[in-house]
Amino acid sequence: MKLSEIVAKIGGELFGVDVEVGQLAPLESADGTAIAFLSNPKYHHQLSDTQAAAVIVHPSVVDVPEHLSIIRSDDPYLYFAQLAWLFHPRAQANHQRHPSAVVADSAIVPASCEIGAHAYVGEHTVLGENCRVLAGAVIEHDCVLGDDCVIHPNVTVYHGCTLGQRVEIHSGTVIGGDGFGYAPVKADGSWFKIPQTGGVTLADDVEIGSNSTVDRGALEDTRIGRGSKIDNFVQIAHNCQVGEHTVIASCTGISGSCKIGNHVVIAGGVGMAGHLTIADKTFIGGGTNITKSITEAGHYASVYPMQTFKEWSKNAVYVRRLADMNGRIKQLEQHIAALGGAKE
Amino acid sequence: MKLSEIVAKIGGELFGVDVEVGQLAPLESADGTAIAFLSNPKYHHQLSDTQAAAVIVHPSVVDVPEHLSIIRSDDPYLYFAQLAWLFHPRAQANHQRHPSAVVADSAIVPASCEIGAHAYVGEHTVLGENCRVLAGAVIEHDCVLGDDCVIHPNVTVYHGCTLGQRVEIHSGTVIGGDGFGYAPVKADGSWFKIPQTGGVTLADDVEIGSNSTVDRGALEDTRIGRGSKIDNFVQIAHNCQVGEHTVIASCTGISGSCKIGNHVVIAGGVGMAGHLTIADKTFIGGGTNITKSITEAGHYASVYPMQTFKEWSKNAVYVRRLADMNGRIKQLEQHIAALGGAKE
Amino acid sequence: MKLSEIVAKIGGELFGVDVEVGQLAPLESADGTAIAFLSNPKYHHQLSDTQAAAVIVHPSVVDVPEHLSIIRSDDPYLYFAQLAWLFHPRAQANHQRHPSAVVADSAIVPASCEIGAHAYVGEHTVLGENCRVLAGAVIEHDCVLGDDCVIHPNVTVYHGCTLGQRVEIHSGTVIGGDGFGYAPVKADGSWFKIPQTGGVTLADDVEIGSNSTVDRGALEDTRIGRGSKIDNFVQIAHNCQVGEHTVIASCTGISGSCKIGNHVVIAGGVGMAGHLTIADKTFIGGGTNITKSITEAGHYASVYPMQTFKEWSKNAVYVRRLADMNGRIKQLEQHIAALGGAKE
Repeated sequence: MKLSEIVAKIGGELFGVDVEVGQLAPLESADGTAIAFLSNPKYHHQLSDTQAAAVIVHPSVVDVPEHLSIIRSDDPYLYFAQLAWLFHPRAQANHQRHPSAVVADSAIVPASCEIGAHAYVGEHTVLGENCRVLAGAVIEHDCVLGDDCVIHPNVTVYHGCTLGQRVEIHSGTVIGGDGFGYAPVKADGSWFKIPQTGGVTLADDVEIGSNSTVDRGALEDTRIGRGSKIDNFVQIAHNCQVGEHTVIASCTGISGSCKIGNHVVIAGGVGMAGHLTIADKTFIGGGTNITKSITEAGHYASVYPMQTFKEWSKNAVYVRRLADMNGRIKQLEQHIAALGGAKE
Repeated sequence: MKLSEIVAKIGGELFGVDVEVGQLAPLESADGTAIAFLSNPKYHHQLSDTQAAAVIVHPSVVDVPEHLSIIRSDDPYLYFAQLAWLFHPRAQANHQRHPSAVVADSAIVPASCEIGAHAYVGEHTVLGENCRVLAGAVIEHDCVLGDDCVIHPNVTVYHGCTLGQRVEIHSGTVIGGDGFGYAPVKADGSWFKIPQTGGVTLADDVEIGSNSTVDRGALEDTRIGRGSKIDNFVQIAHNCQVGEHTVIASCTGISGSCKIGNHVVIAGGVGMAGHLTIADKTFIGGGTNITKSITEAGHYASVYPMQTFKEWSKNAVYVRRLADMNGRIKQLEQHIAALGGAKE
Repeated sequence: MKLSEIVAKIGGELFGVDVEVGQLAPLESADGTAIAFLSNPKYHHQLSDTQAAAVIVHPSVVDVPEHLSIIRSDDPYLYFAQLAWLFHPRAQANHQRHPSAVVADSAIVPASCEIGAHAYVGEHTVLGENCRVLAGAVIEHDCVLGDDCVIHPNVTVYHGCTLGQRVEIHSGTVIGGDGFGYAPVKADGSWFKIPQTGGVTLADDVEIGSNSTVDRGALEDTRIGRGSKIDNFVQIAHNCQVGEHTVIASCTGISGSCKIGNHVVIAGGVGMAGHLTIADKTFIGGGTNITKSITEAGHYASVYPMQTFKEWSKNAVYVRRLADMNGRIKQLEQHIAALGGAKE
């Protein structure tokens, strides 16, 4: 692909020779067939050594070696991502229904869709154009999918769920399983299941990683807003409302009835108690336990710092005595004051 | 449904007009076709404003507006749950074996069962009456299931597992995978797999959420007792013995050979080391790391409190110096004592 | 099986009568048909009471009751594991392709393999000899598997992944799902997906538990080295490089681009930030949050200690004030020094 073709497709401004490039590569490992990018200024020094044929750089970057062709873009990282799709186009629906697939009589599946081996589409489910439902995926009855959805192998979508346009769900993920709701039976301490009669709504451009779960609502739908991206092993419990363009990284569990705003970023391994609200644009650090609502955007954390086991053993024991230590400090302060020490 | 019909089916005492209701709804959003419930006293004030046609209340509740029909029940929340099933009856086995399903010759599958598309039932497996094995579910050989079990799509039950009556397993969950057991080989530091020859036994009325795992025992069965409810993403490692009517919420990992009592409640995101015992009726708060057995029922917790990242950065560093801080306090106390301060 | 047959197969030295044994059992519960083992010296006292017919012991063990036959081995625990396989031989490929399985025309599947009901093998995928691909498992196109692999039911292997010899993957696990990579779009705060064009390579003798995920690399393969063992619910994000004979227990999340050494042991519930390096032979305790690289082997931990909720409530509040407490101690020290206290 010539640089001029790339610029014609994605934009940016070309400087230098209109060379041909065959692949994307990091600055440090690129060879003469590759185009690289410089996004983080701290790698600027790699420009002088790179073997790449061309580099994508911000307009403000100076000191680019003369022999390098460059494409200037306001956002080199985004440009790289867009260019990557030119080299690795997205797989398209093959417009075939595999003979082993089972599509219920009342389901509506346009001819433009791809239905893989052993996939299942239930009664009254309606698919948009060009959807891909891959091997072993199950979409139960009464679901609605927009156009261009990709349902990877062995995904399960329970009945009555709604997916927007271009929703992508990776393997093993379960959408619409029952929320965890039981009424305690006082007589014998047993648990009486509450029917979960809502569904799940995933808005346009939502992507969900592998082996995640989004439970159906108890009465109304659990919802994930437009453009939000959910990683692997994320649990979204019943009745949650996740906003737009929000990102939730792996191994995070969101308890029931939480309301998470727009443009929120939740790092990996976060746990969140139920019925909480998270303000728009909040950033939650990895491993945080969220036990209260966050009403103000900011960066929040709660990780116990790592040490060697020996050091940890010495120190952790005092975590259990902090109130006592504080009391002792207070007493010392009183004694000092009594002894004439200037207490602030 | 008339209120008198509801009372005839579920019990309780009817006061006021025997109106017809078509659905359940919260007090605050109910309209004139709905029946609502009041369980938590703090919502009592909603009674005066509700548009509901009828309300389920405890016998002790007074000041109910005159125009409201009421059903009095000793447990309005449980009553609501029972009523919800009248409006949303549980799906029943359709008594059909889908042509694409594969049932091994030696398996016993009563005609009352529903076997979904691409489901698989292995050799010598025996199903009870009215079981539902839904699309893509796999039950390997030599399993026994009681009556009325529901195995949701893409569940896997490994060979040799035993499920009681009315066991329900949600999609993606794996029952009976190998426990994580290896003998270290001193010669080269490699790991030699120990065969996991036990199975899994799930007693009557156990329900397990989506994408959970219950590993088979090394020698004997891993067991979950009658009526226990397990949420999504719960790992129950090999040889664990979970009691009756115990509840384990999402994202919780129980290491091998733990013994958890009856009526225990474990909130989400809990981690539990191996070979521990938890007393009956213990409550474990969300995010707790259980590193010792709990011999006395109570409420336990171990969450590092959340702060803004800035505050966290300032404080967390001292967690690593707690032993030092305690030593300094002790020294100050000695100095104070030497200086004549009254040391308690 | 006679003890002499066992010794002929596994090694060790036989002392006493060459009795016949029919099973393995723990010392304390073995009956006269069973062989037991003593690995941990603290159970030595059980030798005198055991009903076992024979016991595997270390050459250094003395005081074995006269009536007991013994096999002496340098590593009784490993010997037990090896013996267990004699009693419970590994299931072998049945050399059959189930009629409901779908194998793409261009796939290469030797006749020695077992392909289960509703399993799927994609275009150009190549399997080694004696592989078992069980019910509902999906191996997409362009994968390569070595000999003797076992792919349990409902596993998904995305396209372009490489598995060595004797790789075993348990149910629900997803190999090669897309890594979690998006470029932020400054204009509207949305996220632009970066194609994940690498694959996953699992070396010889890797075993992965149930419902785990190993994401494909962004540019190059995510790799797990020879002999490493991964438990259930482990997330290995894109571009990670896991060494050889490393063990990762359940509910652990490894963020992208981490490099974990050889012979590392990571206990359950561990979270690890991205782009970190872990030295060979490191041991990470359960529940640890790893936020920095570990350059020196050792035992590391970061668990907040558990208390009753009442005690926790009293103490945890001071975690947020540790910097303040430290400042107060420092001030007291200055006052004490001013008052004539000998400050060390």
